[in-house]
Amino acid sequence: MVRTPIALLTDYGFIGPYVGVIKAVILSINPEATIFDLSHDIAPQAVEEGAFVLAQAMPYLPVQTICVAVVDPGVGTPRRGIALRTPTGVFVGPDNGLLSAAFDRELVAAGNAGVTTSLPVPQDCEAVELAKPEYFRHPVSNTFHGRDVFAPVAAHISLGRSLTDLGPSVDTVQAFPPWRGARQTDGSIAGRVIYVDGFGNLVSDIRGEDLSGTATRTQIGAKTFTGLQRTFQDGPEFTVYIGSSGFLEIARRNSSAAAALGAGAGTPLRVWDRAAGDTRESRLHE
Amino acid sequence: MVRTPIALLTDYGFIGPYVGVIKAVILSINPEATIFDLSHDIAPQAVEEGAFVLAQAMPYLPVQTICVAVVDPGVGTPRRGIALRTPTGVFVGPDNGLLSAAFDRELVAAGNAGVTTSLPVPQDCEAVELAKPEYFRHPVSNTFHGRDVFAPVAAHISLGRSLTDLGPSVDTVQAFPPWRGARQTDGSIAGRVIYVDGFGNLVSDIRGEDLSGTATRTQIGAKTFTGLQRTFQDGPEFTVYIGSSGFLEIARRNSSAAAALGAGAGTPLRVWDRAAGDTRESRLHE
Amino acid sequence: MVRTPIALLTDYGFIGPYVGVIKAVILSINPEATIFDLSHDIAPQAVEEGAFVLAQAMPYLPVQTICVAVVDPGVGTPRRGIALRTPTGVFVGPDNGLLSAAFDRELVAAGNAGVTTSLPVPQDCEAVELAKPEYFRHPVSNTFHGRDVFAPVAAHISLGRSLTDLGPSVDTVQAFPPWRGARQTDGSIAGRVIYVDGFGNLVSDIRGEDLSGTATRTQIGAKTFTGLQRTFQDGPEFTVYIGSSGFLEIARRNSSAAAALGAGAGTPLRVWDRAAGDTRESRLHE
Repeated sequence: MVRTPIALLTDYGFIGPYVGVIKAVILSINPEATIFDLSHDIAPQAVEEGAFVLAQAMPYLPVQTICVAVVDPGVGTPRRGIALRTPTGVFVGPDNGLLSAAFDRELVAAGNAGVTTSLPVPQDCEAVELAKPEYFRHPVSNTFHGRDVFAPVAAHISLGRSLTDLGPSVDTVQAFPPWRGARQTDGSIAGRVIYVDGFGNLVSDIRGEDLSGTATRTQIGAKTFTGLQRTFQDGPEFTVYIGSSGFLEIARRNSSAAAALGAGAGTPLRVWDRAAGDTRESRLHE
Repeated sequence: MVRTPIALLTDYGFIGPYVGVIKAVILSINPEATIFDLSHDIAPQAVEEGAFVLAQAMPYLPVQTICVAVVDPGVGTPRRGIALRTPTGVFVGPDNGLLSAAFDRELVAAGNAGVTTSLPVPQDCEAVELAKPEYFRHPVSNTFHGRDVFAPVAAHISLGRSLTDLGPSVDTVQAFPPWRGARQTDGSIAGRVIYVDGFGNLVSDIRGEDLSGTATRTQIGAKTFTGLQRTFQDGPEFTVYIGSSGFLEIARRNSSAAAALGAGAGTPLRVWDRAAGDTRESRLHE
Repeated sequence: MVRTPIALLTDYGFIGPYVGVIKAVILSINPEATIFDLSHDIAPQAVEEGAFVLAQAMPYLPVQTICVAVVDPGVGTPRRGIALRTPTGVFVGPDNGLLSAAFDRELVAAGNAGVTTSLPVPQDCEAVELAKPEYFRHPVSNTFHGRDVFAPVAAHISLGRSLTDLGPSVDTVQAFPPWRGARQTDGSIAGRVIYVDGFGNLVSDIRGEDLSGTATRTQIGAKTFTGLQRTFQDGPEFTVYIGSSGFLEIARRNSSAAAALGAGAGTPLRVWDRAAGDTRESRLHE
């Protein structure tokens, strides 16, 4: 038997038994599941950050992964829970934009940064509302649907339960607009910090593919850095580079760029590149 | 082969190789074990907190789980190690009250809060002292029985070793009294904070089933809150609610109630409800 | 099928999807792998600390473990990646000293503390440079070889791929000198703190086997402690003892010795024992 991989992404942290209980519930239903953690250190109730982290992991998920994703400030309110089948796998969680990365994000109309809009479910996907209590764990609490709804539903899917058994089809799901800095009239790109990683590196929504490469100038707060580096060892104190997920990042040597620059999720930044007529020398300065 | 689930709960944290070594030892003995983490962020040597977290996870453990629980300030002293078989599974750890939740806690005579008493092993359970060095890993250190005693014993049990092979039966085990706030002569319930979760929410020992529900007033320090909310989004800054494990909790919106209220494990609180003659209007104020 | 254990040790922390992505990549290639975490909380880019933590775990790894170890400040530079087969298992990571513990460390010539030297690969081991891109994940990033090189190579090894398929043999690997405090002319041993564990305990490079035992005096900064204790409960505020991995450690009761003493990795300490003519009474004082 090939054991189904079940990936977990939550904002529960590693304090308390919450993540462990999710695993216990899954293993109670499917003892053969291979559970692995994507991340549990999403900032509490930070839905867009969770969506971004899930997007980073998406290209690497094993085929047929079942992903339980729970960052759910609306738990206990009428927001619906959903299961989505895509060519990659099945995604189970609240319908609040967290599962945005399961789809081709370019389909989402550009809208207000950080605000979800309604995305028609693409043709190669299937989505249902979780509406059949027989696949939940009872009693269903008001505050812990990860344990009582999403984990047991995922475990039942891993045993072969089809999505249509779980509830009625839905035609649209909530999704965040694509993370992509906006080209300005002067040719620069305006973006924002989406995520601060565990090293304090600032990850922006400015894509490497939108930059010409060698001659980029980056402004954040009162600081300006020139150039793009290839590795952490190329630059002096601060390094600006295209990170492993394709976005422009700012790191500080052996330290936290977030702390040094007083920046965090939402901090605006702006990048000029040679294509925008920025012909100055490429060098890193501060 | 259905692979035996082995659950881990310790105060080792995720720094250093301690948890990883526990897993390595188990997999060395039983490569087919399915190991999962309940929690490793119990406050160092906080036995009652560990017992409480284990209690929260208990109803969700897969049948036949083997649970290795180690919060063990007495490691290296003559305190004994035990293995308990209950209708839920097998629990392996020090006999210091940490395994209280493996039993029906209502059997424990109410005593001093936070102090263990001796509980006769219930009839549907079996308990032995870990006394056979052939199931330990050698040399046995004075400071890391999780690695040298409890993990290897659990792995041998997962391979089918019976408890009677591991050492002599024991008739009593240490257990904490049930967590249950005490009814006062004025009808209110006096309790204490047992646990602060990863969001900074305060979890008390006051049970939802002991409250009449709609008209509850909660006092902690100089603050009083009125009413019980159903979800995090119902209340203003602070929310008082019955948490997912059935105890009264206090949360603060997008923030830490523990920090805002200067409260932590042991902080007393008191709750009045309508059944106690508290007839004022239900509303949340601060 | 006995499922191959794959152990992970990195400095990625648990924030962000980095560790989860490593697991996703491995499970994509070998869905039957049994992945477990040794540690991910190595201080960022602290290669020697990573090597020390790996050394602590080494005696406990299941036979035939494949260990992916990544603390890699030189990622993206020409430093090479290697795979080493030893009698214990296979170790995959950068050739920067991190894998020192895979070998008999006593073979390494004593050198400058914390600086790697070139160690001829011992006869019972095999080492290759990772040079075959067909076993990498593409595109290979400049900053995340854990995901793109080391994890996929380890997964392929777990499926039976031989090391000689992965690249050319190498004759030497980088290794740190053994951790062993140096005997001084007055008979004392001078060492340093190598590691601060999750409790704030200070772990030194002074070995218990180098001490006579009962009458040891330990000096760190302005403090001197006398005696060696057997357990945490033997001593007053501070406890000096031989830890579970055989090195002299300093702990503080229910608190952090590192914070109380202002000490951390690199802090020097010095130990006198009776064998060195230190005949004073054994007692713990501060």
